[in-house]
Amino acid sequence: MSGSTISFARGAPSLDIIDVEGLSDAAVRAFESDPAGATAYGTSIGYPRLRAWIADRHGVEPERVLVTNGSMQADAFLFEHALRAGDDVIVERPTYDRTLLSLRERGARVHAVELQPDGIDTDALAGLLDGGVRAKLAHIIPNFQNPAGYTLSLDKRHALLALAGKHDFLVFEDDPYVALRFKGETLPTMLSLDPERVVYASSFSKTVCPGIRVGYLVGPVELIAKIAKIAANTYISPSMVSQSIVYEFCASGAIERSIETVKTALAERVGVLEAALRRELPEADFVTPEGGYFMWVTLPEGTDANALLEAASERGVSFVKGADFLMEGGDNTLRLAYSGVTVEQIDEGVGRLAQAFRSL
Amino acid sequence: MSGSTISFARGAPSLDIIDVEGLSDAAVRAFESDPAGATAYGTSIGYPRLRAWIADRHGVEPERVLVTNGSMQADAFLFEHALRAGDDVIVERPTYDRTLLSLRERGARVHAVELQPDGIDTDALAGLLDGGVRAKLAHIIPNFQNPAGYTLSLDKRHALLALAGKHDFLVFEDDPYVALRFKGETLPTMLSLDPERVVYASSFSKTVCPGIRVGYLVGPVELIAKIAKIAANTYISPSMVSQSIVYEFCASGAIERSIETVKTALAERVGVLEAALRRELPEADFVTPEGGYFMWVTLPEGTDANALLEAASERGVSFVKGADFLMEGGDNTLRLAYSGVTVEQIDEGVGRLAQAFRSL
Repeated sequence: MSGSTISFARGAPSLDIIDVEGLSDAAVRAFESDPAGATAYGTSIGYPRLRAWIADRHGVEPERVLVTNGSMQADAFLFEHALRAGDDVIVERPTYDRTLLSLRERGARVHAVELQPDGIDTDALAGLLDGGVRAKLAHIIPNFQNPAGYTLSLDKRHALLALAGKHDFLVFEDDPYVALRFKGETLPTMLSLDPERVVYASSFSKTVCPGIRVGYLVGPVELIAKIAKIAANTYISPSMVSQSIVYEFCASGAIERSIETVKTALAERVGVLEAALRRELPEADFVTPEGGYFMWVTLPEGTDANALLEAASERGVSFVKGADFLMEGGDNTLRLAYSGVTVEQIDEGVGRLAQAFRSL
Repeated sequence: MSGSTISFARGAPSLDIIDVEGLSDAAVRAFESDPAGATAYGTSIGYPRLRAWIADRHGVEPERVLVTNGSMQADAFLFEHALRAGDDVIVERPTYDRTLLSLRERGARVHAVELQPDGIDTDALAGLLDGGVRAKLAHIIPNFQNPAGYTLSLDKRHALLALAGKHDFLVFEDDPYVALRFKGETLPTMLSLDPERVVYASSFSKTVCPGIRVGYLVGPVELIAKIAKIAANTYISPSMVSQSIVYEFCASGAIERSIETVKTALAERVGVLEAALRRELPEADFVTPEGGYFMWVTLPEGTDANALLEAASERGVSFVKGADFLMEGGDNTLRLAYSGVTVEQIDEGVGRLAQAFRSL
């Protein structure tokens, strides 16, 4: 083992792609331009100027937007409002481990439907629904999915909404990576296609920084009002300081530059990752993502990702086992996050990973 | 009616007693001195440097401290961890309306015990416990209580802890106002008297600003670890940006100056409020608080605070009815917050309130 541990595990940006100076400047402007708004309790719907900025970005009325303490908190509020123990919920297989945990802790009956490179298997979902599953909500990460890196095609977006209409369930469009497309064309959000059937969540964790903890929901006015009440009873209001900083960062245009920086870095990293895997670990099967943080890798049948993780860890490289994103199976899969590693680390890390694989 | 509405309603500081410049400077230092810590996800226990600062302030190990997105969120986590529907919980009568709501929404069986000018009636509490109430937790606001402004005496702190030991319940010491004592001597926290029996909550809302949303819990190591897990599953982590700003504000000593500013203003305001009430509304019965934001006023038996609020509102002055802090009764009581009003507003506001009272 040479050097310190290289982490393909954490879905978080490296410090070099965060505009720290821009954030500092935004903070100064926030306290200067709206001292009362930044320092007072504010309201549970979030900092009004940021709410309006987000609404404008999505072409909706501000009444449809609630800005929260990160988008996980938004999920928690939505689930608290919309779900009861025993409710049927659809998720993708694989899906984000924290969402899976959160749904299970609420006692939801989770039905995982295969995720294909063009998104959730809508035929399988139709079969499930026709078979009698009375879904209350479907959790979908449409762009550069976590953990798979796959993107839901336009056809499937329409198919999913048609199913939601026919079987009367809510689509929870969980979209934190949408801005990070470095290749191909951005698809319309399901929110824009059917605003009354979709609750949309996104975040500034990937475009500003995670430590700012600012996420948001967009949804039907009545639902947002009910969630605002839950938010008020939970924490009165989210951080107005954080949200006013994000607002100033957005309003000044710094966010567009930040997104460019992030996208350029991610595109470069994914290129290096792809090349390194093809060179060092040709047994790896994957679809190269067109955006986001993650690549899903399938190793030959019979590979034990547990043993691989141990062997990798001994060689100073880490990743997350695919099984962590599944309710069962996936023993030969892994998630590689390329958001927090430099290109040099990627080359070195894949080399170590390949050595670990050969050692099994 | 002359001028705009004067609010004795909201328990929030006026902008003039917030060190906005100090906050802006702290933000710049936070991004400069610890860019990685301020911008990354961080952990669910809060920003480590702030956690250590708080631990030091309370003379405990950092492992006993969890820093949250405001102290209401800390309450919510504690209740989620410690309470189940049907559990007996002790509160003060009157008490903070949001806590009351939160407990009731969790299905707790709330027992309200009379609050006297020297704190909760510990004899009545002993009677209740001897009578068979199996309390799981007692929620106590020991200093300058919201809404009453009363402070729990040292004797009663000991008595309460003795009852907690005898009847095996947790004391939830909810102490956001402790730093705002402008008269008399600070009493030891119950936390310091019995660290294994007490969970302590406080906040920087009153010493830095509410919009920063930084509160914290101090409690037994094992309990804090469990709550940290709930926090991680709820929001991954609180705002590292907010918390690193608070840390820099504290570490630089700005917080001590801020507390002095706040205390000086509150002492002046309470003096003016007391004099105005004695002059304009001699029917008002109250105990002048020695700190904090609130004064509890009892009007002659038969006064209808609902009607008074309406008459006051017509004259451009607002307050919160005492009944909002009670499960029943208190129709002739009100809470006056003097934290958000200038001395001129207090004089004018009490004048209007007296007119409203005379109009009934």
